[in-house]
Amino acid sequence: MKQYIYTFSEGNKNMRHLLGGKGANLAEMTQIGLPVPAGFTISTEACNQYFENNNTISDSIRKQIDESVHQLEQKVNKRFDGSPCLLVSVRSGAVFSMPGMMDTILNLGLNDHNVKSIAESTKSGRFALDCYRRFIQMYSNVVLEIPMYLFESILEDCKEKYHLKDDQDLMENHLNEIISSYKQVVLNESGKEFPQSPKEQLYSAIEAVFKSWNNERAKIYRKINNIPDEVGTAVNVQMMVFGNMGDSSGTGVVFTRNPSSGEKKLYGEFLMNAQGEDVVAGIRTPKAISELEKIDKPVYDELLKASQLLEAHYSNMQDIEFTIEMGKFYLLQTRNGKRSASAAVKIAIDFVEEGILDEKGAIKQLDPNQIDQLLHPVFDQEKLQAAEVLATGLPASPGAATGQIFFDAKTAEKAKAEGKEVILVRMETSPEDIQGMISSNGILTARGGMTSHAAVVARGMGKCCVSGCTHLEINELNRTANLGGLMFKEGDFLSIDGSTGHVYQGKIETISSILNADFEKIMSWADKFSRLSVLANADSPTDAQKALEFGAKGIGLCRTEHMFFDGNRISDIREMILAKTNSNRKFALNKLYPHQKNDFKGIFRVMRDLPVNIRLLDPPLHEFLPKSKPEMEEMAKVLNISLEEIEKVTEALMEVNPMMGLRGCRLGLIYPEIYEMQVQAIISAALEVQEEDQFTPVPEIMIPLVGNETELSRLKSLAEGVLIDLDPSEKLGKVKIGTMIEVPRACMVADKVASHADYFSFGTNDLTQMTLGYSRDDAGIFIKKYKELKVLKADPFQQLDQEGVGELIKIAIEKGKKTNPLLKIGVCGEQGGDEASVHFFNTLDIDYVSCSPFRIPKARLAAAQAALPQD
Amino acid sequence: MKQYIYTFSEGNKNMRHLLGGKGANLAEMTQIGLPVPAGFTISTEACNQYFENNNTISDSIRKQIDESVHQLEQKVNKRFDGSPCLLVSVRSGAVFSMPGMMDTILNLGLNDHNVKSIAESTKSGRFALDCYRRFIQMYSNVVLEIPMYLFESILEDCKEKYHLKDDQDLMENHLNEIISSYKQVVLNESGKEFPQSPKEQLYSAIEAVFKSWNNERAKIYRKINNIPDEVGTAVNVQMMVFGNMGDSSGTGVVFTRNPSSGEKKLYGEFLMNAQGEDVVAGIRTPKAISELEKIDKPVYDELLKASQLLEAHYSNMQDIEFTIEMGKFYLLQTRNGKRSASAAVKIAIDFVEEGILDEKGAIKQLDPNQIDQLLHPVFDQEKLQAAEVLATGLPASPGAATGQIFFDAKTAEKAKAEGKEVILVRMETSPEDIQGMISSNGILTARGGMTSHAAVVARGMGKCCVSGCTHLEINELNRTANLGGLMFKEGDFLSIDGSTGHVYQGKIETISSILNADFEKIMSWADKFSRLSVLANADSPTDAQKALEFGAKGIGLCRTEHMFFDGNRISDIREMILAKTNSNRKFALNKLYPHQKNDFKGIFRVMRDLPVNIRLLDPPLHEFLPKSKPEMEEMAKVLNISLEEIEKVTEALMEVNPMMGLRGCRLGLIYPEIYEMQVQAIISAALEVQEEDQFTPVPEIMIPLVGNETELSRLKSLAEGVLIDLDPSEKLGKVKIGTMIEVPRACMVADKVASHADYFSFGTNDLTQMTLGYSRDDAGIFIKKYKELKVLKADPFQQLDQEGVGELIKIAIEKGKKTNPLLKIGVCGEQGGDEASVHFFNTLDIDYVSCSPFRIPKARLAAAQAALPQD
Repeated sequence: MKQYIYTFSEGNKNMRHLLGGKGANLAEMTQIGLPVPAGFTISTEACNQYFENNNTISDSIRKQIDESVHQLEQKVNKRFDGSPCLLVSVRSGAVFSMPGMMDTILNLGLNDHNVKSIAESTKSGRFALDCYRRFIQMYSNVVLEIPMYLFESILEDCKEKYHLKDDQDLMENHLNEIISSYKQVVLNESGKEFPQSPKEQLYSAIEAVFKSWNNERAKIYRKINNIPDEVGTAVNVQMMVFGNMGDSSGTGVVFTRNPSSGEKKLYGEFLMNAQGEDVVAGIRTPKAISELEKIDKPVYDELLKASQLLEAHYSNMQDIEFTIEMGKFYLLQTRNGKRSASAAVKIAIDFVEEGILDEKGAIKQLDPNQIDQLLHPVFDQEKLQAAEVLATGLPASPGAATGQIFFDAKTAEKAKAEGKEVILVRMETSPEDIQGMISSNGILTARGGMTSHAAVVARGMGKCCVSGCTHLEINELNRTANLGGLMFKEGDFLSIDGSTGHVYQGKIETISSILNADFEKIMSWADKFSRLSVLANADSPTDAQKALEFGAKGIGLCRTEHMFFDGNRISDIREMILAKTNSNRKFALNKLYPHQKNDFKGIFRVMRDLPVNIRLLDPPLHEFLPKSKPEMEEMAKVLNISLEEIEKVTEALMEVNPMMGLRGCRLGLIYPEIYEMQVQAIISAALEVQEEDQFTPVPEIMIPLVGNETELSRLKSLAEGVLIDLDPSEKLGKVKIGTMIEVPRACMVADKVASHADYFSFGTNDLTQMTLGYSRDDAGIFIKKYKELKVLKADPFQQLDQEGVGELIKIAIEKGKKTNPLLKIGVCGEQGGDEASVHFFNTLDIDYVSCSPFRIPKARLAAAQAALPQD
Repeated sequence: MKQYIYTFSEGNKNMRHLLGGKGANLAEMTQIGLPVPAGFTISTEACNQYFENNNTISDSIRKQIDESVHQLEQKVNKRFDGSPCLLVSVRSGAVFSMPGMMDTILNLGLNDHNVKSIAESTKSGRFALDCYRRFIQMYSNVVLEIPMYLFESILEDCKEKYHLKDDQDLMENHLNEIISSYKQVVLNESGKEFPQSPKEQLYSAIEAVFKSWNNERAKIYRKINNIPDEVGTAVNVQMMVFGNMGDSSGTGVVFTRNPSSGEKKLYGEFLMNAQGEDVVAGIRTPKAISELEKIDKPVYDELLKASQLLEAHYSNMQDIEFTIEMGKFYLLQTRNGKRSASAAVKIAIDFVEEGILDEKGAIKQLDPNQIDQLLHPVFDQEKLQAAEVLATGLPASPGAATGQIFFDAKTAEKAKAEGKEVILVRMETSPEDIQGMISSNGILTARGGMTSHAAVVARGMGKCCVSGCTHLEINELNRTANLGGLMFKEGDFLSIDGSTGHVYQGKIETISSILNADFEKIMSWADKFSRLSVLANADSPTDAQKALEFGAKGIGLCRTEHMFFDGNRISDIREMILAKTNSNRKFALNKLYPHQKNDFKGIFRVMRDLPVNIRLLDPPLHEFLPKSKPEMEEMAKVLNISLEEIEKVTEALMEVNPMMGLRGCRLGLIYPEIYEMQVQAIISAALEVQEEDQFTPVPEIMIPLVGNETELSRLKSLAEGVLIDLDPSEKLGKVKIGTMIEVPRACMVADKVASHADYFSFGTNDLTQMTLGYSRDDAGIFIKKYKELKVLKADPFQQLDQEGVGELIKIAIEKGKKTNPLLKIGVCGEQGGDEASVHFFNTLDIDYVSCSPFRIPKARLAAAQAALPQD
């Protein structure tokens, strides 16, 4: 019979796929001698078997559960429904950590009968009843799917009735009353009595965990995090230990280092006389972990020792759950701790200094997607001087955000869709709020700690978050919030700082964060290991400056058309478009020439001796024409021509599928004057900068949309013609002329094209459009649907389609290198900054990727990770 | 020193590339002992050398010319400017026959001095002066570029002044007067005296021939006929023989068989006492060749014998020019004769019967593009009963045409561009009229014979032509024509029959020609040798019927969307598009279902047991929505919904690049109800037809626009779901399910796609669009420009781009066959009916091509030729 269940002594951390992350780690901790309550893990294979078996637990698995329970009873010397009475927790444990997504049931095994014997054996009727009350509530909600508020309101009514402040004030009589009401709710809602058999409770709980794998929240989480649906979840069944067995008991959640700053110091919270859920749910505000040292030094020391052991064992910062049962310390869970980007960087560097990791290990531990966070905005310090702090909450996720406040996820989502900047303001967040959080610049909650849902999820998303802002009062009915005595309506502006916890009135301008020395160190390590260079897509001196700051090794794509929209250049280009003769066109181009030249000079001055790869005009000319009648009338006035003429030209240039129309090198061949002017501007700019600033710019000229050898050879000759006239070779050296490869045909004839090119730059955006036949402007609708239908795993415009587009790129490189072994090869589409895509590009004979400035650090890190051997 | 010149005794017919067609044939005829006036050929290499040498004849070539002239003088025992006096013709001779395109000069060598010695030696002052008069006129026009009308008007004035009717009535005094006036014109126009040195005349004439290679007319002809510009022309210099040396002299043009009907009988015209140009130019109306037998039997017999010898020698029908000089027969030229399609078919079959060719040779001799002509319309015989013959001209090129008359090429071209059906009506046509002829349904001329420019060119184009319609009087000034006593204005309707020469008033309906037994025989031979099957693209029973008549082996592409536009089905599909729920959508689809089923039944009934490959819905849904406001209002009324709703949906469905939007299988995945309905309609139709008509239709189901394995596997499952419900397998056998390969990505993942497909059908139209990034709707402009700039050799939508699209097809076939060796492979784009493309497809592992019905015979012939070994 296939083994579907493993005790914690049987497993280890390498069995994640079978035992889930939590189960594997419980087993691993058991293996290394840490105090973990005994238990067993029902494997992910059992979960998949459950789904295959028409959502039924098979007899063979049922039998293995019975046997495992029996073994557990032997081991801990307790009995299900016996004395001493065994209670268990049932928790999901997916292969990848999915915080808050899956359901957990504690205190399973309790019933009307054994609650009394527990009361006797623990000598605390209150404790036993509180456990039972919690169990009924949790089980009924998770397994029987009875809404939580039905129970919450009974609890609140009771407290109100007896004028009690906290849950802890509930005495046996109150609890008995509550339990009785709870059971009535269960009967009303489910039509059945609350189940009394611990085995039945266990089977149903396990089934509920399996089912929860497919609940909407879990699906959304998996979708966001690209976790395949087929993985399944394991279920951990573990002897209960109680943090709520009086004042020498407690529970806590701790990070081995500060997850916001990376500081090497235990960081977390605990509550005495409480169960774990009280800490995580953020309902009671817990104490800082440092307080524990004062309350129970031996336990604190044990926690500290365990933390150090785990960190060294996993070579990673850990997120630990622990419980103290009447002075005895138990570890309930460990996992790699989520952390802010800056914490991740600091921890990686500290680990290297402490000898826990080497530089390569440090690089591999970082998440390229998270690096983005470091680039997130902070408040403009000058503007901040004038701002008044309305309130202070917990600095739950770093960064600064400003926006209009909205009180629920749906409204926030809608506001975002309308183009508003959003701050989501909630009492506390729950998994249902995920879409709303995604839509927000920042999240502000009234309740919950640093490990609350809002805090954990926001850090994961790299969103700024202030949690536990106790001075925040929300009136959901009136849709207003009171903060520091001031009233705010929905739609009013607030600004929050997730690094300080401060909340400010109104808008405060944000600026990009200043990158620190740690970041620079990590990036320099990354560059040591990378094979791919990272260049930038930048069209202006400002962008170029940003790219340099982020470590770009040059500009891989400088689009020239954006420059045409500046100021009154647009009239000049329109005049050029309307020109009926070559000489009229040249006249208009002559007006554009000095502007283009100055644009290029500005960029050369920033990039100095790094290459600047300039793409000649690419978009169809109609993009420069006005779309609306008033704009056309304005244009008619400016250019002193008739509206009819403009309408006629606009009509003539209109295209059914402009993506595949008269653009790119097709323009260059039909209106050679345009490209001539551009090449002249590029070379003259370089020569002038050299003369004025005494360094040598490195311009490169890129011909777009080539699909045919002749296109490139003709336009190369045209460019060379200009080069011969200006004769820059002595001063600038050889000016490289290359082409974008963005039409599938170009890949097929890459050998012929390569013989005229100094380099290929794969324009993976357009290449994706044409290879897949997906118009980027239109495909959003069906790509979304395709992802839902699992026809696509990822959006091919975000992550390179390796099978299709990637295969074409492979062919093109192979063919290109055959005729031109010196051919330089780069990628300048958006996917150049995507982690998975960079890994793929690293496997090919590619020299560089080029992406927008803010994606450069991510790409540098991904390039290093791609170059390092995989585990 | 490189040999640039070859005497006729040195060359042969295999030296076409060096000597041009005319030169190689003159040499060949000399070789086989036919009476060809002596001469030599200046090679095409000399022509290219001339262009390379800055349009100058190099010294080395000049030297070879001098030597060749000297040898010629020796051989014929005459002297340039001596006695007996050598006169020569100078003619161009391109590698491919280019009738009327290149310029010719006769009687070269004459001057004021030797014209007198010729008069003495021939004892005919009139003859010598007439030669000189013609020579000055021709040389001045061709070499000195003096307009012809200046000379014509002098000639006409002289005839008027002396009341002379024909050129033949001109006597010595008249001719002296004319020559004197001609020379004055030359002096006025060129600023120089008419050149007197025969050598100078010769050099200039040779140069003029070289130059004429690049004149506009030649360029247009080459463009139409896909002749590369780099080929160059040879120049033939040949001793003059004179058809105008009195009544025992003459000249003629003859086809060895009738070029219209193919009848085995000499066919052509001659004129006594005339030079060749008189026959070709159509200025004097010549006599039928049969008359020659009566006038000069020995010469006629010699001509007949030469014809038979040449036909057997070339295994092809010949077009011969001959001259009789004082009773002596000379052959001046032979070349493969242009012929009508039906003549080509008849001649090929007769050649096989006569043992001149075998069946393979016959197939190879036919031109697939010309086969189209056989499918050209004839008049509806019933309608013709009522029509009255206005006039009868020569039946110059078969077929019937009806349209509005226009009197010049430019106006005809313009009318055609405006969508009018055009009949070009001219006194006679000239090479300048080519564009106008292309734009016309038919050509009607007042002058010129069966070998006139109009006749020859029209036959080549497969246009109907009536020439030499002497009852036609054209008033170019008033833009009217008088025909049989009736006055017609420009724009009035006429109908002409190029097979009878009849001209009718008004419009007469045309119908497709009935294919004869000869055609069937050729097609059956073709099918014997072909490897590729030819199927049809047909969407209706009518088209299917036509396809069957033309020999289609099935339907390779039946588009289902055209059916949706019929009658009020469009409302149903609109209702479907507007449906907000699946059930509303299904409701609308249920209304469409019986129509679709009946459509398919109709097609199955025609095709019987031949396969019918039906493509599920492909175009984006917005194609079915109204575009204009009135149409939208109409739709709102019909469907009883608000205009706003329609505008909203239209807006929502609008796409920037619809070619790469929500269409094809993307629709099928997002709205599975549509494809389900279609598959149900297909299978039910087949089952019902089988039941009703007692034969078994062969439906095949094709999924369009697949680019991803999952798309096909999902939609295949969907179709199979319907198949399971209807369970046709016992009755219909296995229903094949395949996919169109039209997205480049599909080629890259063809191995994976193939594992779910019974067949691939390459949709080369869309595949071309996406591989090249050419939107078919927009690319016209730049494809035209690209052909002019020689960036493209052919329009890739007409002739498959072998390097790009072809390479992708190769890859896809290789990959597809790897995982599915039984995979059937076809091509269903327009290029499936193109000759060059069929040759390419034949080299690949492709089973069939599918094209529109009228292209089927062409494709069948091309497929046979492709399969036969090349010479």
